[in-house]
Amino acid sequence: MMTAGAAPILDSAIRSVAEAIDRQFDLLLTIPEDSRARLYDAMRHSAIGGGKRMRPLLVKASADLFAVSELSALRVGLAIECIHVYSLVHDDLPAMDNDDMRRGKPSAHKAYDEATAILSGDCLHDLAFTVLVEETTHPDPFVRCELVKALALASGPAGMAGGQMMDLVAETQPFDLGAVTRMQQLKTGALIDFCVEAGAILGRIPPEGRTHLHGYARDLGLAFQIADDLMDVDGDPERAGKTLGKDEAAGKATFVSLMGVDRARDQARALIDQAKSHLRGYGQEADLLRAIADFAIARDC
Amino acid sequence: MMTAGAAPILDSAIRSVAEAIDRQFDLLLTIPEDSRARLYDAMRHSAIGGGKRMRPLLVKASADLFAVSELSALRVGLAIECIHVYSLVHDDLPAMDNDDMRRGKPSAHKAYDEATAILSGDCLHDLAFTVLVEETTHPDPFVRCELVKALALASGPAGMAGGQMMDLVAETQPFDLGAVTRMQQLKTGALIDFCVEAGAILGRIPPEGRTHLHGYARDLGLAFQIADDLMDVDGDPERAGKTLGKDEAAGKATFVSLMGVDRARDQARALIDQAKSHLRGYGQEADLLRAIADFAIARDC
Repeated sequence: MMTAGAAPILDSAIRSVAEAIDRQFDLLLTIPEDSRARLYDAMRHSAIGGGKRMRPLLVKASADLFAVSELSALRVGLAIECIHVYSLVHDDLPAMDNDDMRRGKPSAHKAYDEATAILSGDCLHDLAFTVLVEETTHPDPFVRCELVKALALASGPAGMAGGQMMDLVAETQPFDLGAVTRMQQLKTGALIDFCVEAGAILGRIPPEGRTHLHGYARDLGLAFQIADDLMDVDGDPERAGKTLGKDEAAGKATFVSLMGVDRARDQARALIDQAKSHLRGYGQEADLLRAIADFAIARDC
Repeated sequence: MMTAGAAPILDSAIRSVAEAIDRQFDLLLTIPEDSRARLYDAMRHSAIGGGKRMRPLLVKASADLFAVSELSALRVGLAIECIHVYSLVHDDLPAMDNDDMRRGKPSAHKAYDEATAILSGDCLHDLAFTVLVEETTHPDPFVRCELVKALALASGPAGMAGGQMMDLVAETQPFDLGAVTRMQQLKTGALIDFCVEAGAILGRIPPEGRTHLHGYARDLGLAFQIADDLMDVDGDPERAGKTLGKDEAAGKATFVSLMGVDRARDQARALIDQAKSHLRGYGQEADLLRAIADFAIARDC
């Protein structure tokens, strides 16, 4: 599914964003010389060197559309990654998904302890807003307020955390395709939507000029989740860096369990084509968004 | 220690703030008609009908100094209460302080389950920022940014959550009076400081005009914590609505264990006198702040 020329633009962007995010986390999480050292250690353990940084990459890609400064995009990406990492730390807890491995390393509660894991997640949660609201992110306080508002919505009960609750309920209640879609739209979709909208917020594009971005984000988010479900069924645990096959073991309804592998794969491809169709008004400034869409389903399926 | 005339002003303010906060939480936490209902139920369980709402009261009292609108003070108080309640929910978890009772009710993980408790805390954490950043809180986005920045700092690793980590470490390491003071200044002091500063932020008083408020908050916060430690030693569990004697059982260093009951009580009184001395430049517009100071040590000691 990779379009010609997509790979190089994506590879170099992934590398530069991942390096920049690690560098920012390193600066943000300087270990203090008091008894909070363990807390900062735990935050660094979970935050540094992790994953492909798809969310900060999406912010950079959407910022490309509106000629937003690299620093602004990086700061917003850092804030989102704070939220994403905090959610992984809490989701991995024994009381939640009980995952011992994350990004190829012991998850926070295994490397440290549960209390430290909970607190390190809480702290990353706060740091997201600290990063967003500082002047370095954007000179206009109205823009910073809009970012804070959108991120708090995307990560809270009307977004990611609400979706995580739905996911917990899905272990005990039969979910149909509509319910799984709704759950995904909150659990992973809301944050992806914020990433894609962030470029427009930073570029001071009014809400009515962001419809196509929401369309792209919705289709990409769904495709991304289907690809994740496919990976859970037949992915390589070493490449994924986490325990696979958990949804099936828990008897949870997923896109794959409800549609079957083949239909799920077709659906993911159709969604990616649809995602890219929302970008038809753009030229090469949207190439990174297009490449990310292709990559979303090329990962392991 | 109650000054003449303090009680009526305080009683009526406590009642009206507590009612207003409950009403705001009721509106904020409308239960959705989907599988997130349990999550909202859990948030309501922890957030509504709880405590004396000392923190929102402090915001109102500091807002009185600068003729800030009631609604602005209430919204900031609501945001702080979101943070305070989320921290109680997480602190009560088995992996943290393992408390089964809170404000006279089963704590969230007992009334629901651990996963729901963790998520409901996370959601209240987000709601704090959602509330702060909305225009209803203050028309000026610069002011809203300042509020978000100060609250995120006060609740994160440089504030409350950092102090909670120090508190966990205190169970295994000997803490002296300096370390206990520093721990308290983060764990409870940072949020109290924000409450008292909030009136000045809302009133657009520049940072250099807030020194006396920080002085008041520091002394009040310390006195408040000493009173709390005293209550832990010889308070009435029914009135406190939580398990008492836990610090002693855990062998944790507290102001009381390090100073003894009598010296601790004297110290709390001296701090309250000092706290009120920071308000000497004000007339009756500071009466509520003075009454709160008196009340802080009159609760159970």
